[in-house]
Amino acid sequence: ADPEAVAEARAHQDRLTKPRGALGALEEVAVRLAGAAAASPPPIPAPAALAIFAADHGVHAQGVSPWPQEVTQQMVGNFLAGGAVANAFAAQVGATVTVVDVGVAADLPPAPNLIVDKVAYGTADLSEGPAMTPAQAVSALEAGIAVARRLVDQGARCLVTGDMGIANTTASAALICAFTGRDAAEATGRGTGVDDETLTRKVEVVRRALLANGLAGPAGGRSRDAGDGRAPDGDVVAGPVSPGGPPAGDVLTGSALRTLAAVGGLEHAAIAGFILGAASLRVPVILDGVIAGSAALAAAALAPDAVDHCVAGHRSAEPGHALALAHLGLRPLVELELRLGEGTGGLLAHPLVCAAVRVMHEVATFDSAGVTEKGA
Amino acid sequence: ADPEAVAEARAHQDRLTKPRGALGALEEVAVRLAGAAAASPPPIPAPAALAIFAADHGVHAQGVSPWPQEVTQQMVGNFLAGGAVANAFAAQVGATVTVVDVGVAADLPPAPNLIVDKVAYGTADLSEGPAMTPAQAVSALEAGIAVARRLVDQGARCLVTGDMGIANTTASAALICAFTGRDAAEATGRGTGVDDETLTRKVEVVRRALLANGLAGPAGGRSRDAGDGRAPDGDVVAGPVSPGGPPAGDVLTGSALRTLAAVGGLEHAAIAGFILGAASLRVPVILDGVIAGSAALAAAALAPDAVDHCVAGHRSAEPGHALALAHLGLRPLVELELRLGEGTGGLLAHPLVCAAVRVMHEVATFDSAGVTEKGA
Repeated sequence: ADPEAVAEARAHQDRLTKPRGALGALEEVAVRLAGAAAASPPPIPAPAALAIFAADHGVHAQGVSPWPQEVTQQMVGNFLAGGAVANAFAAQVGATVTVVDVGVAADLPPAPNLIVDKVAYGTADLSEGPAMTPAQAVSALEAGIAVARRLVDQGARCLVTGDMGIANTTASAALICAFTGRDAAEATGRGTGVDDETLTRKVEVVRRALLANGLAGPAGGRSRDAGDGRAPDGDVVAGPVSPGGPPAGDVLTGSALRTLAAVGGLEHAAIAGFILGAASLRVPVILDGVIAGSAALAAAALAPDAVDHCVAGHRSAEPGHALALAHLGLRPLVELELRLGEGTGGLLAHPLVCAAVRVMHEVATFDSAGVTEKGA
Repeated sequence: ADPEAVAEARAHQDRLTKPRGALGALEEVAVRLAGAAAASPPPIPAPAALAIFAADHGVHAQGVSPWPQEVTQQMVGNFLAGGAVANAFAAQVGATVTVVDVGVAADLPPAPNLIVDKVAYGTADLSEGPAMTPAQAVSALEAGIAVARRLVDQGARCLVTGDMGIANTTASAALICAFTGRDAAEATGRGTGVDDETLTRKVEVVRRALLANGLAGPAGGRSRDAGDGRAPDGDVVAGPVSPGGPPAGDVLTGSALRTLAAVGGLEHAAIAGFILGAASLRVPVILDGVIAGSAALAAAALAPDAVDHCVAGHRSAEPGHALALAHLGLRPLVELELRLGEGTGGLLAHPLVCAAVRVMHEVATFDSAGVTEKGA
C-alpha cells in the first residue's frame, strides 16, 4: 500500500461534512483502496465483473457432500442460462458474469459467457495424496491471472470472485488448516448443509488429507493462539503470512504452491491467480466466501501485498471463513449468514464498496459547503 | 402480515436452485416483504426515495452536542446542493433525495427538493417538560404521512427514512427509555461524537427528561429483562409494543402519542408518520439509525402492524439503537459502525433488500433448471 495515498485519504475523510469516523468501517475501505491504487481518492470500483471458477473434486468420493458431483456441471448450465442467484445479484449490482471451467469433470458445450481453460477433469482425492501436481496448480493459477487481465481489458474496474464445485468446502477447510495451523474440527463446517454424521466424516477426511500430504503436526498436540487466527510463532505449517509482511516461509512441508496443490481445488488455485492478477493490475477484488478466503491465503503466501487489493465481501456461515479472514487481517462487510458461494456474498458487497469510494469523490468539505465544525 | 403469502414465499424459496436457507437473513427479508405486500413474490422495492426530516431541538441548550444548532440548517443546504454523504449514497443506489423541514429553527429559502411543512421553530426543551404539544406531534405525524404518500405517488416503491437535527440522539434516547423501560445510561450514546463529560451530562439530561415528563419509574429501581429489549410485564411505562400484537396500553403516563410529544423531536414524529404512511400504502420502508429506530417504537405503539413493512437498514454505533431494534423484533442488515444519520445506513441496505426480493422473481427452480437436488 502507498503510505502517501493512505495518509492523504485519511486527511480527506476528516475534511468531509460528517463527524470524524462517522462512516465506520466504510472509511477504512476507502482508505485501503486509496493505498492499493496509490491514489486518493481511489478510482470508483465499477463496473464489476464476476468470474465463477468451476471445478470438481476427487474427494467427493469420500461422501463429504450430499450433492451429486454432476451438480457442478448443472449449475454451470444454470449460470450460463442466467437462472442462478449469482445472476440475480449480478443484475442487481450491474456486474457481468463469466464462468470459467478450470476443472469440471465433463466436457461443457460452448457458450458466450463460458471460458474453457480446463486443467484436468477434477482433482485427485486429497485425502489420499496430492489433489493436484504442482504443474496443474500453476496452470490453474495462470488461468485465473488470465481471466483477471481479460475482464479488466474489457472494462471491469472491480473483480468479484465466484466458485462452483461440489465438495469444495472440504478443500477449503484443508487449505485453511494448512495455512493457519488450525485444527480440522475448527475449520470444517457444514458447507451447503451436511448432517452431523457427514460433518464428522468431513472433519476426518480433512484430518487425513493433512496427514497424507505431510501438512499436519503431531495429531491434536498443537497449541492455539489467542484467537486472532494466526498460528503461534514456531508453529507454522506451510508458509502462513503476516499481512503486509513476507510469508513466514517453508517450515515443515514446503512452499505455498505445494500446499495449494496438495489440498486445494483447481478453482481455489484459479481464484488465487485471479487475486494475484487483480493485484498486479491494481484493480480491487472483492472476495466471496470460504472458497475465496482459503484461496486468498494461498495468494497471500505467494505475494503478501496482494491482500492490499482485497476486500472481504462477506463472512459466510462456514467456520473456517472467519479464521481465514482473521489471518488475512480483513474485515467482512456483509454478515448475513449466507452459505451459497457462486460469488453471491461478494456481489452484495459491491455497492457498499462503491459507496465508500464515492464519498471521497462527491462529498463536500466543511469549507466548501459552509458548514460549521463542531466545538472543541 | 398475510400468512398465505408468507407460506407461499417460504415454499418458493425452498424450490430455488440453492441449498435451503443458503441466503441466510436475506431469505427472511424476502419472506417478510411477501407477508407485508400480501403477495409472493413481493414487488421489487425500487426505485427508492429518501426523505430527510429536519428539525431543531430545545434540549440543545443543555449542552448535549458539541455542534452548534445552526448546523441543522447548514446541512439542509448541503443536502439540497447534493454535497452530503446521503446524496452520494442515494446516487449509488438510484434513490431520490427529498428534504422535509418539519421544525428547523430558521426560515429556509425555497428549493426544488425541499418540502416546508414546518410545525414549529424547533421543540421546547424536553428536559424541562414536554418537547411538543400533542397537537404539534399530530401535525408532524401528518406531515410524515403526507410525504410518504407524495413519494409513492411520484413512483417510489421503497421509502428510506432520513433525519437531520443537531441534538436529536438525546430525544431518541429518551424515547427508547420511555418505550422500552430501559435506563438512560443504557440507551444514551455519543451521537456524532461527544466526549466523556458531555456523555455524562447527556445521560443526566435524558434522566431528567423522563422525570420531568412523568415517564420514569422509581429512580434506578426498575428490574431489567433478560436482554430481548422488552420491559418486563407490569413494568411498562408508555405503551411498549409486542411486534404483531396490540400495544400493552396506557399504564403509567398515557398514550404513545403523549410520550412521543413529551420527549420526541419533530423529525421523530414525522418519521413515525412516514412509517405509518408507508405501511398504509403497503410500501416497504427501510429504517436508518437510532432516530428512525426510536421513531419506529412510536409508530409501532400507534399501529403495531406497521412493523411488518419495516426493514432495519443497519445498526448504528449508538447503544439505544440495538435496544430499539430488539424491541421491534427487527434484525439489521448492515453493521459497519456508521453513526452519521441522514438516511445513510438505510440507503446502504437498499441494494441488499432489492437483491433479496429479486431472487424470488428471477432465480430458476430445481425443476426448471434441471439441477439435481441433494440426496436424502
